[in-house]
Amino acid sequence: MLNQATTTLAVDTPGRGLIDITRRVRDWAQAQGFSEGLLTLFVRHTSASLLIQENADPEVQRDLERFFARLVPDGDALFRHRDEGPDDMPAHVRSTLTATQLSIPLLHGRLALGTWQGIYLWEHRQRAHRRELALHLLGR
Amino acid sequence: MLNQATTTLAVDTPGRGLIDITRRVRDWAQAQGFSEGLLTLFVRHTSASLLIQENADPEVQRDLERFFARLVPDGDALFRHRDEGPDDMPAHVRSTLTATQLSIPLLHGRLALGTWQGIYLWEHRQRAHRRELALHLLGR
Amino acid sequence: MLNQATTTLAVDTPGRGLIDITRRVRDWAQAQGFSEGLLTLFVRHTSASLLIQENADPEVQRDLERFFARLVPDGDALFRHRDEGPDDMPAHVRSTLTATQLSIPLLHGRLALGTWQGIYLWEHRQRAHRRELALHLLGR
Repeated sequence: MLNQATTTLAVDTPGRGLIDITRRVRDWAQAQGFSEGLLTLFVRHTSASLLIQENADPEVQRDLERFFARLVPDGDALFRHRDEGPDDMPAHVRSTLTATQLSIPLLHGRLALGTWQGIYLWEHRQRAHRRELALHLLGR
Repeated sequence: MLNQATTTLAVDTPGRGLIDITRRVRDWAQAQGFSEGLLTLFVRHTSASLLIQENADPEVQRDLERFFARLVPDGDALFRHRDEGPDDMPAHVRSTLTATQLSIPLLHGRLALGTWQGIYLWEHRQRAHRRELALHLLGR
Repeated sequence: MLNQATTTLAVDTPGRGLIDITRRVRDWAQAQGFSEGLLTLFVRHTSASLLIQENADPEVQRDLERFFARLVPDGDALFRHRDEGPDDMPAHVRSTLTATQLSIPLLHGRLALGTWQGIYLWEHRQRAHRRELALHLLGR
């Protein structure tokens, strides 16, 4: 019979950049004892997001940062919402262009991630934050 | 025992911009009587999308519009698909860069939205439209 | 009583561009015999992604390619990760800006796609690849 499990996960970020959360997420999901199912991650913030990207060459992550720094520059004169500084509105735009939620099937007791796929929390603010994720797992 | 519920939701938009649908979505989800679960929203169009963003300062929404107007300008000479006018293809690109679907866990009888998170339907066409969403709720 | 089904799907791509997978996905989903439910697709790669877009005018797909070729040009001097050539890092960025996963409700025995919505696998590399998708269907 199908069942479900939920939890929340707090992630401390050191400031802007990708935090690898693959192990924490996988450990929780695979500990629920399901063989087949669906895991969903949801980030409860609008200035951080979720990303599945290559986990092999760290240069990929630095290139992603370079691309987004050029596409959505901090302090852009276009933006009027600056309550929390020059990286405030760019963080909302980066979050808009990426994912607030991800779902990953569970197959044969393992998350269906490809060989080179890692799960990342993407901190878009310059300063350190504590971010909260809500997790839901359906399965059997 | 796990159960599910589905419905559709029609949203009338006044033209381009973010329409706050948080209350309508939450009211339906929380009325199904589940304590824990997963809500999924799906927009049945390719020129409107879904977004979770800050619900506090309305300037955030205007800045998002400014950013996308610069990134994907109406009438861009790059585009050849103009059947429905200069905002036709930009609407498809905006939809491509944002979300057609969102899933949000339900925890302790409430959607796991963060304090500042609202759910928006993003109308990308200049003219008013009636948009349809499909909703699915899994839970117990 | 709720049930689930899972499978994997291999998609051969001829190189960069959108591959229509609507029929294959729909055929599998609708063959599981559920009336109401939720289908999830997950692409097990970081240089290909998923997209729901217009299925009527092929010019839309060409305009999408033109837009992304301008936004994330192959061989951009910004990028240092070039292990697999000038389209390597752009493929990761394109994948970051679009979707690794999509969920679509099933209503009255049919996927809740709008009239003009098709499901596409987006190959972001210039060369042909075999891509793998993981599918999960919940329903009754």
